[in-house]
Amino acid sequence: MMNKVEEKQSSAWTGFKKGQWQTEIDIRDFIEHNFTQYNGDESFLEGPTEATTKLNDQLTELKMKQRKVGVLDADTKVVSTITSHAPGYLDKDLEKIVGLQTDKPLKRSLMPQGGINMAREALETNGYHIDPEVEEFYTKIQKTHNQGVFDAYNADIRHARHNKILTGLPDAYGRGRIVADFPRIALYGIDRLIEAKTQDLNLTGDGEMTSDVIEQREHISDQIRALRDMKTMAASYGYDISKPATNAQEAIQWLYFGYLAAIKTQNGAAMSIGRIDTFIDIYINRDLERGVLTEKEAQELVDQFTMKLRMVFFMRTPEYNSLFTGDPIWATLSLAGTGLDGRHHVTKTAYRFLNTLHDMGAAPEPNITLLWSDNLPMAFKQYASSVSIESSTIQYENDDLMKREWGTDYYGIACCVSAQPVDSGVQFFGARANLAKTVLYALNEGRDEITGQQVGPELKKMSSEYIDYDEFMGKLDRMMDWLADVYVNALNVIHYMHDKYYYESAQLALKNTKLDYTFATGLSGLSVAADSISAIKYGHVKAIRNEDGLTVGFKADKDFPRYGNNDDRADEIVVWLVKTMYQKMNTHHLYKDAKLSTSALTITSNVVYGKNTGATPNGRELGEPFAPGANPAYGADISGALASLVSVSKIPYKYATDGISNTFAVTPTTLGKAEDEQEDTLVNMIDGYMKNNGHHINVNVFKRETLLDAQKHPEKYPTLTIRVSGYCVYFADLTKEQQDDVISRTFHTSM
Amino acid sequence: MMNKVEEKQSSAWTGFKKGQWQTEIDIRDFIEHNFTQYNGDESFLEGPTEATTKLNDQLTELKMKQRKVGVLDADTKVVSTITSHAPGYLDKDLEKIVGLQTDKPLKRSLMPQGGINMAREALETNGYHIDPEVEEFYTKIQKTHNQGVFDAYNADIRHARHNKILTGLPDAYGRGRIVADFPRIALYGIDRLIEAKTQDLNLTGDGEMTSDVIEQREHISDQIRALRDMKTMAASYGYDISKPATNAQEAIQWLYFGYLAAIKTQNGAAMSIGRIDTFIDIYINRDLERGVLTEKEAQELVDQFTMKLRMVFFMRTPEYNSLFTGDPIWATLSLAGTGLDGRHHVTKTAYRFLNTLHDMGAAPEPNITLLWSDNLPMAFKQYASSVSIESSTIQYENDDLMKREWGTDYYGIACCVSAQPVDSGVQFFGARANLAKTVLYALNEGRDEITGQQVGPELKKMSSEYIDYDEFMGKLDRMMDWLADVYVNALNVIHYMHDKYYYESAQLALKNTKLDYTFATGLSGLSVAADSISAIKYGHVKAIRNEDGLTVGFKADKDFPRYGNNDDRADEIVVWLVKTMYQKMNTHHLYKDAKLSTSALTITSNVVYGKNTGATPNGRELGEPFAPGANPAYGADISGALASLVSVSKIPYKYATDGISNTFAVTPTTLGKAEDEQEDTLVNMIDGYMKNNGHHINVNVFKRETLLDAQKHPEKYPTLTIRVSGYCVYFADLTKEQQDDVISRTFHTSM
Repeated sequence: MMNKVEEKQSSAWTGFKKGQWQTEIDIRDFIEHNFTQYNGDESFLEGPTEATTKLNDQLTELKMKQRKVGVLDADTKVVSTITSHAPGYLDKDLEKIVGLQTDKPLKRSLMPQGGINMAREALETNGYHIDPEVEEFYTKIQKTHNQGVFDAYNADIRHARHNKILTGLPDAYGRGRIVADFPRIALYGIDRLIEAKTQDLNLTGDGEMTSDVIEQREHISDQIRALRDMKTMAASYGYDISKPATNAQEAIQWLYFGYLAAIKTQNGAAMSIGRIDTFIDIYINRDLERGVLTEKEAQELVDQFTMKLRMVFFMRTPEYNSLFTGDPIWATLSLAGTGLDGRHHVTKTAYRFLNTLHDMGAAPEPNITLLWSDNLPMAFKQYASSVSIESSTIQYENDDLMKREWGTDYYGIACCVSAQPVDSGVQFFGARANLAKTVLYALNEGRDEITGQQVGPELKKMSSEYIDYDEFMGKLDRMMDWLADVYVNALNVIHYMHDKYYYESAQLALKNTKLDYTFATGLSGLSVAADSISAIKYGHVKAIRNEDGLTVGFKADKDFPRYGNNDDRADEIVVWLVKTMYQKMNTHHLYKDAKLSTSALTITSNVVYGKNTGATPNGRELGEPFAPGANPAYGADISGALASLVSVSKIPYKYATDGISNTFAVTPTTLGKAEDEQEDTLVNMIDGYMKNNGHHINVNVFKRETLLDAQKHPEKYPTLTIRVSGYCVYFADLTKEQQDDVISRTFHTSM
Repeated sequence: MMNKVEEKQSSAWTGFKKGQWQTEIDIRDFIEHNFTQYNGDESFLEGPTEATTKLNDQLTELKMKQRKVGVLDADTKVVSTITSHAPGYLDKDLEKIVGLQTDKPLKRSLMPQGGINMAREALETNGYHIDPEVEEFYTKIQKTHNQGVFDAYNADIRHARHNKILTGLPDAYGRGRIVADFPRIALYGIDRLIEAKTQDLNLTGDGEMTSDVIEQREHISDQIRALRDMKTMAASYGYDISKPATNAQEAIQWLYFGYLAAIKTQNGAAMSIGRIDTFIDIYINRDLERGVLTEKEAQELVDQFTMKLRMVFFMRTPEYNSLFTGDPIWATLSLAGTGLDGRHHVTKTAYRFLNTLHDMGAAPEPNITLLWSDNLPMAFKQYASSVSIESSTIQYENDDLMKREWGTDYYGIACCVSAQPVDSGVQFFGARANLAKTVLYALNEGRDEITGQQVGPELKKMSSEYIDYDEFMGKLDRMMDWLADVYVNALNVIHYMHDKYYYESAQLALKNTKLDYTFATGLSGLSVAADSISAIKYGHVKAIRNEDGLTVGFKADKDFPRYGNNDDRADEIVVWLVKTMYQKMNTHHLYKDAKLSTSALTITSNVVYGKNTGATPNGRELGEPFAPGANPAYGADISGALASLVSVSKIPYKYATDGISNTFAVTPTTLGKAEDEQEDTLVNMIDGYMKNNGHHINVNVFKRETLLDAQKHPEKYPTLTIRVSGYCVYFADLTKEQQDDVISRTFHTSM
């Protein structure tokens, strides 16, 4: 006998190939059994429908207005929950996919649970005022994540944070970086998911109520409540998501409701949508085959869904924006990739998603990430290249490498570049430790080179003006020990408190109950630190100090190898830094026994990091920006594009599974004269980089002159989009300083 | 050089004998060095001042009105915090000691953190309506202790709770039962306490941020915040408590502000004031010696402080009231006792506290507990006895026994009868498991004898109509295993969630940072269970069953020994039950590795327990009340008062450190004819009981006729106060059912 839930599923599933996905919650298995490879080219693609264009025009207008006047509207009293807002629309009659964060387009919601100060300041600096009752409540009665964190921080952490050797910690807002398995709602319907979670609840703990078991049981109960709320929210939009989706429109709508629940409850630094292209493609294919959908309509669904991802914004403070410029939310969308069996996962829907950039123009969100593999069909590689050359909106990540390291082909990219198993992975996000500053601490007895405060352990002075390499390395080792300790401790506190005060029940309701946690640390100033160490080792460097004995400049008597030129003498230092920091951090207790990972990844914050770091032995002056992510230092990679790429690809991914970000800019003519030639060169370059174990590359194709012109005449380039470390941004949304930084980066003009 | 804090302390401390208490937070050491024994009689005592009498009349009027119309006023919107309310007074000009829970006398505060349902229902059933925003907030956005508990409970716990084999669990309100070291505020002032807690914070953890360390650090930060809030609250009443108290009035006022912070933030089942008599006495003595205070004024301070303790009320539901009738809050006040050095701690102030019963009439609060020792001076014993005979408001506990078991002389009584080190002890309160029901579950295959539901483990049917003792004991053993498991698990969940959602920062701010936790379980139906086992063993008992096979009655062919007659055959069963349950519970994981304790203690809930328990093999009918606490079953102790007392005192305190409560009633004439003779007999009886290792005794001295008359003519006895299991209650506040129960108890008419 089929029960009611099974009956509903059965008719929704007509036409799908059977598999374990029917009895277990298993989207991967469903995709594996049902997806259709596409080996053709882009010629099947259709343009936007009239409705899409109208909606997109409205949205563009709103966004341009927002760029001009700032935040268009904001909640000051209603605390956002899954069900807190009445339905909102851009233009109800035209929308095929519905659902907004709040009740109005681009109106920002109130999320004080991460931190009431951040919520208040974000409103204040945008001309709004938080409701006094809400403020009082979260100040005097209900603690927030932020207050919890500062209650537990020790002086060492506060000091390190204050002196900006630790930066961007998610201690005042949501940690983000959880890719939920949103397709579950579409394939199974909420009722089945509640049933499965209830089973998990009953199977949690052997009866003995230890604190671990209690916590887990509470969390599952929270998840079940979130699932129920999703049904209520969807119902307010007129949809019953208790049962599985029956067609492509519903499938996209259902999974989007899941995403909507996530962004209604969490303001994480990154709220990624995951890897949904093959899943959606299966539903579109079935509808096409049934003759109930045309290609035009299919593209419309993909366009309008993508448009929704372009409409997500959170209230942020100026301080936050200085780290992550352009209001990014990392609705990262992972496309293509391959299966464990080697089959590529390119479908027509991967094309359709890339086509949204034509249909609706370039935009920073969703953060389009192409999972690159040797096995991807050439036509698709070329099409992606053509989009990159046209709009510089795509990043490429090494699917072969990630599949190997994570042991699954059902991973998605969380935030910028970090892989995460969609069904079972959770990342404890941790922003960054500044390695360049660490080098300076070693040279300044543990004092901060700018504030002069004793931040790191107090060490003896360097014995001479000229820096002795061995003496320095001994001190650096101790400074890295300290940095590893204080950094891991800060993250342990942050994630404990986040679970306590701001648990992500909506997202985790859409993942396995038994999770694999990654403890994601990050390193900034990698190339500056490496080149500085190289300078000390090979360059006979003298430290210039002020009256307080703090270093204010360095002079190298000899030239020295620099990272980014395929010179092992320098490149080995980068590898040593990553591996050594990894090992030192891994000696520590990690919250929930998470698996340590690290990254070389800085977003736009390389500018701020540089601003807060004194002159470094590699010749960089005080305040000069760092290179982003794992990039060689500005001007250091002078041996051509390929040598630069080879150097970056030497960093072993196994230590930096959180991501090794390389932001690459090349002029169109360097790639070739004709369009076809440019595409081929780009494909070959990416292929080569990936075969060489490069993890990630942001591809920007444009001339410096274009950016200079866009800086002068922003009105001419309203949607000029570029890739910075790990995401896309409208060039016009960058500060003057950041624009200068981007312009001053290496533009490869020779391969 | 003295710093500012030290200077203030120094002048406040003039005249005190020096000791370690000056450099360490150590009230015990201060008392030890400074208290003055009093060996005289009560003749020095003064009556109330005019102001006290006026205030008391006002309060009595309010309380009589409250008895008639119910709750007089209640907050429906303002969530109570230390600083949430403007100052409140009974009559500002007359009050020597100020401070109310809210801004009006007897107005009850809103405390939803324990459970929003309980908060709402408590208001509703009293004719008030919770503010919808508050309700929505605590329903949809902010979880309460109650919701957290139910999120983690498993089916087994819910089932056991629903079938009332587990009862009175503090899973919907504050757990209470923390005696804070309130004198700290008076002796040291808040600033010094903040300084000490800040030091503790800096010394918490070795740098590695494990979850335990993080939690501890957060809790200390919470405590520091609470201390700051206490200063703010006191300032609103015109007092600066940042510095130490300088005289008796300030000392009492300061420590009362600490208590006020506790009852403004927690609605625990028991909010005890602790052991403050010798401490206060030191300040009164100094003022008397300095000539700045008269005995009349000293008594006024004690009276008015005591009056404040009589004014504390929480909003409770009818369900709560059925367990704990008469609105008790257990402002338990521990008096006298002895030091580890054997010196008695009787001071004039112990007399003064007893004298409040004359000055202001009898009242249930504070719950006066006399710490009895062989070493107490006879004059004091006699005076206490005279008060008992007069008003039946005192309970007596065995100081020699508790000092030995707890290893300290600075303990206070938390809640009814449970000892707790004032500086370092915390009790995780856990209400009760019903042993009588457990006996019935063993006879009914694990089914509940009333609901018929399978609650305990499913066992085979008893093989015959007549109950085979060995077969029964095998089943009982397995049922007790199950009960121990489900009970401990429920408590693990409750205390985890209480710490998470309703942490007692105000009270714990006034205790040591490093705490000793007791895991307090409780057994109800002890005498019924024991007599039932005895009946099965000795009485040749037949079970009478209904059509479902559930026991509905029992018939014993032979007489059998009963607990309460100094007959080892029965008394050993009681001991075996307590010890076996203790051992079984102690096999389990206990939250925070707390030390297990148990109790035989039922408050007024023995009536409800009995109501929910079927007929038992000892001949008790369905629904008949249990005897309270460790008392022999009603009518079972027929061998005189002394034999009854000897039986109870056989229960080893080491297993039941949470308390062995004996509620004793004797007619005046049984004690003797003349008043002096009655006093002597009572003193001798208590002395004998304590020497025999009895732990606790509620002494009621009256005739059954008095109670019968009071039941008929309540207006004649408005403040007739009696002792029930562990606290005092106005007889008029008991339900008819409970009055009948009290009347039907054993009134010893022979020694």
